[in-house]
Amino acid sequence: MRAQVHRISTTGPDDIEGLKAAIAAGTINPRHIVAILGKTEGNGCVNDFTRLLSTQSLKAALAEILGSTLQEVQQRIAFVMSGGTEGGLCPHLLVFEADRSPSRDAVPVPGRRGLAIGVSFTREFLPEEIGRMAQIEATAAAVRQAMEEARLQRPEDVHFVQIKCPLLTGPRIAEARARRQSVAAPDTYESMGFSRGASALGVALALGEITADAVCDAVVCRDYSLFSRRASTSAGIELMRNEILVMGNSDAWDGPYTIGHDVMADALDIDAVGRALARIEDAAAVKLNGHTRDMIAAVLCKAEASRSGTIRGHRHVMLDDSDIHASRHARALVGGVLAGQLGDTRLFVSGGAEHQGPSGGGPLALILRH
Amino acid sequence: MRAQVHRISTTGPDDIEGLKAAIAAGTINPRHIVAILGKTEGNGCVNDFTRLLSTQSLKAALAEILGSTLQEVQQRIAFVMSGGTEGGLCPHLLVFEADRSPSRDAVPVPGRRGLAIGVSFTREFLPEEIGRMAQIEATAAAVRQAMEEARLQRPEDVHFVQIKCPLLTGPRIAEARARRQSVAAPDTYESMGFSRGASALGVALALGEITADAVCDAVVCRDYSLFSRRASTSAGIELMRNEILVMGNSDAWDGPYTIGHDVMADALDIDAVGRALARIEDAAAVKLNGHTRDMIAAVLCKAEASRSGTIRGHRHVMLDDSDIHASRHARALVGGVLAGQLGDTRLFVSGGAEHQGPSGGGPLALILRH
Amino acid sequence: MRAQVHRISTTGPDDIEGLKAAIAAGTINPRHIVAILGKTEGNGCVNDFTRLLSTQSLKAALAEILGSTLQEVQQRIAFVMSGGTEGGLCPHLLVFEADRSPSRDAVPVPGRRGLAIGVSFTREFLPEEIGRMAQIEATAAAVRQAMEEARLQRPEDVHFVQIKCPLLTGPRIAEARARRQSVAAPDTYESMGFSRGASALGVALALGEITADAVCDAVVCRDYSLFSRRASTSAGIELMRNEILVMGNSDAWDGPYTIGHDVMADALDIDAVGRALARIEDAAAVKLNGHTRDMIAAVLCKAEASRSGTIRGHRHVMLDDSDIHASRHARALVGGVLAGQLGDTRLFVSGGAEHQGPSGGGPLALILRH
Amino acid sequence: MRAQVHRISTTGPDDIEGLKAAIAAGTINPRHIVAILGKTEGNGCVNDFTRLLSTQSLKAALAEILGSTLQEVQQRIAFVMSGGTEGGLCPHLLVFEADRSPSRDAVPVPGRRGLAIGVSFTREFLPEEIGRMAQIEATAAAVRQAMEEARLQRPEDVHFVQIKCPLLTGPRIAEARARRQSVAAPDTYESMGFSRGASALGVALALGEITADAVCDAVVCRDYSLFSRRASTSAGIELMRNEILVMGNSDAWDGPYTIGHDVMADALDIDAVGRALARIEDAAAVKLNGHTRDMIAAVLCKAEASRSGTIRGHRHVMLDDSDIHASRHARALVGGVLAGQLGDTRLFVSGGAEHQGPSGGGPLALILRH
Repeated sequence: MRAQVHRISTTGPDDIEGLKAAIAAGTINPRHIVAILGKTEGNGCVNDFTRLLSTQSLKAALAEILGSTLQEVQQRIAFVMSGGTEGGLCPHLLVFEADRSPSRDAVPVPGRRGLAIGVSFTREFLPEEIGRMAQIEATAAAVRQAMEEARLQRPEDVHFVQIKCPLLTGPRIAEARARRQSVAAPDTYESMGFSRGASALGVALALGEITADAVCDAVVCRDYSLFSRRASTSAGIELMRNEILVMGNSDAWDGPYTIGHDVMADALDIDAVGRALARIEDAAAVKLNGHTRDMIAAVLCKAEASRSGTIRGHRHVMLDDSDIHASRHARALVGGVLAGQLGDTRLFVSGGAEHQGPSGGGPLALILRH
Repeated sequence: MRAQVHRISTTGPDDIEGLKAAIAAGTINPRHIVAILGKTEGNGCVNDFTRLLSTQSLKAALAEILGSTLQEVQQRIAFVMSGGTEGGLCPHLLVFEADRSPSRDAVPVPGRRGLAIGVSFTREFLPEEIGRMAQIEATAAAVRQAMEEARLQRPEDVHFVQIKCPLLTGPRIAEARARRQSVAAPDTYESMGFSRGASALGVALALGEITADAVCDAVVCRDYSLFSRRASTSAGIELMRNEILVMGNSDAWDGPYTIGHDVMADALDIDAVGRALARIEDAAAVKLNGHTRDMIAAVLCKAEASRSGTIRGHRHVMLDDSDIHASRHARALVGGVLAGQLGDTRLFVSGGAEHQGPSGGGPLALILRH
Repeated sequence: MRAQVHRISTTGPDDIEGLKAAIAAGTINPRHIVAILGKTEGNGCVNDFTRLLSTQSLKAALAEILGSTLQEVQQRIAFVMSGGTEGGLCPHLLVFEADRSPSRDAVPVPGRRGLAIGVSFTREFLPEEIGRMAQIEATAAAVRQAMEEARLQRPEDVHFVQIKCPLLTGPRIAEARARRQSVAAPDTYESMGFSRGASALGVALALGEITADAVCDAVVCRDYSLFSRRASTSAGIELMRNEILVMGNSDAWDGPYTIGHDVMADALDIDAVGRALARIEDAAAVKLNGHTRDMIAAVLCKAEASRSGTIRGHRHVMLDDSDIHASRHARALVGGVLAGQLGDTRLFVSGGAEHQGPSGGGPLALILRH
Repeated sequence: MRAQVHRISTTGPDDIEGLKAAIAAGTINPRHIVAILGKTEGNGCVNDFTRLLSTQSLKAALAEILGSTLQEVQQRIAFVMSGGTEGGLCPHLLVFEADRSPSRDAVPVPGRRGLAIGVSFTREFLPEEIGRMAQIEATAAAVRQAMEEARLQRPEDVHFVQIKCPLLTGPRIAEARARRQSVAAPDTYESMGFSRGASALGVALALGEITADAVCDAVVCRDYSLFSRRASTSAGIELMRNEILVMGNSDAWDGPYTIGHDVMADALDIDAVGRALARIEDAAAVKLNGHTRDMIAAVLCKAEASRSGTIRGHRHVMLDDSDIHASRHARALVGGVLAGQLGDTRLFVSGGAEHQGPSGGGPLALILRH
């Protein structure tokens, strides 16, 4: 099997021209697409419809190209749109291909395991399930399923799990209340955190980072000592299920890509870039320089405002700002930290890292093209 | 003469406790204070009253401590409050002391020139003068006066000129129109750029970076090939004159501080830090490491959204965002870039760099304590 | 001919269920739809993609229902999405049907002229044409064409002209500059005003409210003594042409709807409701009460911040607010004023009334169902 | 005793010129001032420093005029600054005077009871007390004390209780947690609602609108069937105690002012104006017209987004908007509704009506000058 990753800048949330051009040029085989991640330019919060606009535009384009129905496209491809390109972040798509056909020209590089990817979906959740055990358990099951699909048997071979998960809106909360059900978070912005947090705990459970008896409804967004070092979860208004992309390295995959990850201990932890590079198996000597920068095919990471209200002892204002939500500040900050280091603003920085890395920090993954 | 710089974090725009504690402890001599710069946590745009709240709080505290009137405090000390601590920036004050008394314990270090500072003020401007030649010329004259005061005879000895300048509000525009005067920019947010731009051109003129015949009303915020490499100007609602702080290195000053500057070519140009360090005269060998980081007493720089709409070829959304003004995005971005590099969020990043460095970039200065 | 108006609340910008249900129920004949106006819940400014999401969703749904291509739908139906439902405004669609087939059951009511509607489109504009004579003249020609289509020969029979017009973005400005063309407004938010203003002047020209020799590039957004009392123009990122819906009353139309209009002199002018009702020809006795409220099928109006900075002598802060754009404040205000009066929040309040009514006020139209 | 109310527009949060002019003209006796309410132009949310700037400016001015210390001013005068002048609301002050000296020219009008006012303060609260029983009980006690001071023995003589109460910030929460105390609301914006809600329940308790056994920590911001019809509470960052102004009508007061109140059932309930007027005791015949409008000396009311997500059956977007907080939308809406009705934008509309009137509605009071 062979995985490929294509990074395509967009001119707006509805821009499908870059994808169509790559397909027309033969660079991308549309039948191999299994997931599309995207940074879109909305606020990344509750009323961010750019995620939906992007998803809708991509689905319509792919349905036409593939001669499929929208339903078929949706069943096969995970769409993980993450809103918010604050600071200098560049709106872009990451298109993941998985070629599962026996490929004659596959030339495994001895000693190098290739990027392996698996996609899965949970069922649709009810509003009252979001941010609670139902979401945690369904996510854990789906992560295991995607690992199996990717032939990533061992949890340690998994380097990143990207998830799109739902959020609560006024109407959704009202619908649950009409059925006399309470919801995990009555504030809609806050509900995003609960959905991200429960999804991340599901990843941690599936990867053995926490044990089943450690999780219950009460720990979500409360006991932050429980977290995954590889989960990145992003909430959106445009779906009610979780869509999951598991990434790792495996002998069963022979493409030119490999992935490595580490955890940023706080928002300024630029050394995480070097640590993630060092994790890429056959690349102990890889250092960040002009050459390695050119090898970077994708950067994925999480950002959040530290709950302590400080970064390395100095106050930040993110949590007290009623004009700009904390997740927007956090994306701008971590985007700047990494863009300065990498010289590139095409970074998939997702905001809100509940149970994803330690408080104030978050997982970081780099995909290199050899 | 001896200059000192004190960096004091604040808990809010009205927080004067840190300053009072430093005075009580004898660390700061209130009679020597000539300028206070501050990052406050407002939006940094038109309706940012945190700058005024900070200035008002500081003036009242200093008047009480010094036994002076508010008027006397205002005549002697420049207050340059810059709003906007987006991303992770830490609200803080930079208190500048100048001791002009013959000091017995002054021990000039051979080969090292000390930080030299000069303060000046223009007259109050009429609304119709803002962003035009009247402001440019008055600023140039005031910069020359501050240089003289600081005994910085040669323009090349000046490393940074920090200016607080006014902006237009609805009532101010209406007042001018009632007198049948037009204003440079009828949009209040836009007027901030014109005021910053004209002030920066005044610096460029005083420092010989441009010639007098190159400037006229029409070039302000239009011909961006004209710029200063050492100006940093910040507009605020709380004043109608320009308040100016000139910084350089001079034999006439023997304190433990020196300043160096360079220009960030774009928002990601982290190498500017090293270039500014290399400019510090007796410190050719200084590199950014744990030791030099500890020597940093203050960081001052400008940030702006590149007018091209791209950074190193990749699109940014700052100029098309109607929820968050471009100057807010830009501060968050450059703040992140530098905080990642320096490991510290106490950075005086000011937004809107019209005629301050090349388009999309901006001047950067570091003050080191030896 | 017979016109009908359907007001359909939406649950989000992509909600097409209400429209589909009305078509399924036979209430709306999709072949008769000539225009869809909509209030969507974005910021109504530059980066508001809810307008595009709504338009895209509606086009796809109608293409499927009609068995047409998207292209055909677009050529026949005007989509005028206006972003911004600040305060309590309810996101909703106004679907306009025009049945031009000889209709046996048409029963003209003696003495009552029915609602007449005409739709037209200009060509696509270049960025440098927006806010200038090219847009004014093309709009005037298109308004005349729509009047002819609606058999509204006399300008005084026209009661409202709703227009969707383009705006400038960073990339569009850059594209023009690459061709060495200047644009009317380099600030993207400001460009919305120029586009709205030029479109409104086009309406005023077509309706004889101003003369051709009174308009030139220089008067746009400058000489506000020139205005239309019946134009409502709304700028959006999602198109580069003007889409026009002309509404009036005519003997040639025999539906149960009539339209009346007047001008709000300022944002608080609630008496304009009564004046607009009095204009409805056979309804001199109509007063606003429970009965007439039930007759209201649609409310369309404009809102803007008065340039004087005051409303009836009292200061407003709309023009000095850098967190919330003035057009958002203005929609919230006028929406509140009218919702209090009418007891209904389903109001098509559009922000930014340059050359649409007097400064600080704007046109208002009511469509009644008899 | 005699009470007076002065409505003074401001040009900014620091504007004290209007107050000084009224004092210089003898219109206001500074020794009689017991409370100053103000609408300031900040966001009315957590990081709104305009309330503090206004309070600080007023205190300094009054201390100078009275020859008092700031401490003395603070002990005697309640400062209730409410941020947020969205829509067209006009920033203004309401200065309340109480003359308790035997006044020769007092001419009680037979059958009319005059405006009676009482001021009180609670102790400062700890962060963990905010939004809980400690705040409820201290508020109830302080309301009773203010009633006594105003000689308003019977609860039914009280028409409005305006309270300024604290909110939680990141540092305050951190301080409580360091002492191992939990807080009522870890989200700072949400904490404003808890503080307002607990303060309103304190009023309801003091006025006998609810019974002591009905309230406990758990009902705050949960059981909205408990509410006061006369409380208006506004949270701010600038204090840690509650400051209380009780208003009613009493035989013991003989000024030319009277107050009446009612409750807006929802945001569009304009009939509440007429009902409040009818409550003014000797003014059964008073109707809202040009004459009664001229008698209005002050308008005070609450605004909030209905939790149902709808207004009279139609959806609003306030609760799902992550760019503009719900309380800002609500102020703009209710401000528009009332400004349209009253023809005046100088309205003290305060946002967030937890336990103040029914869900989606809020108390309204009018003060008339006879």
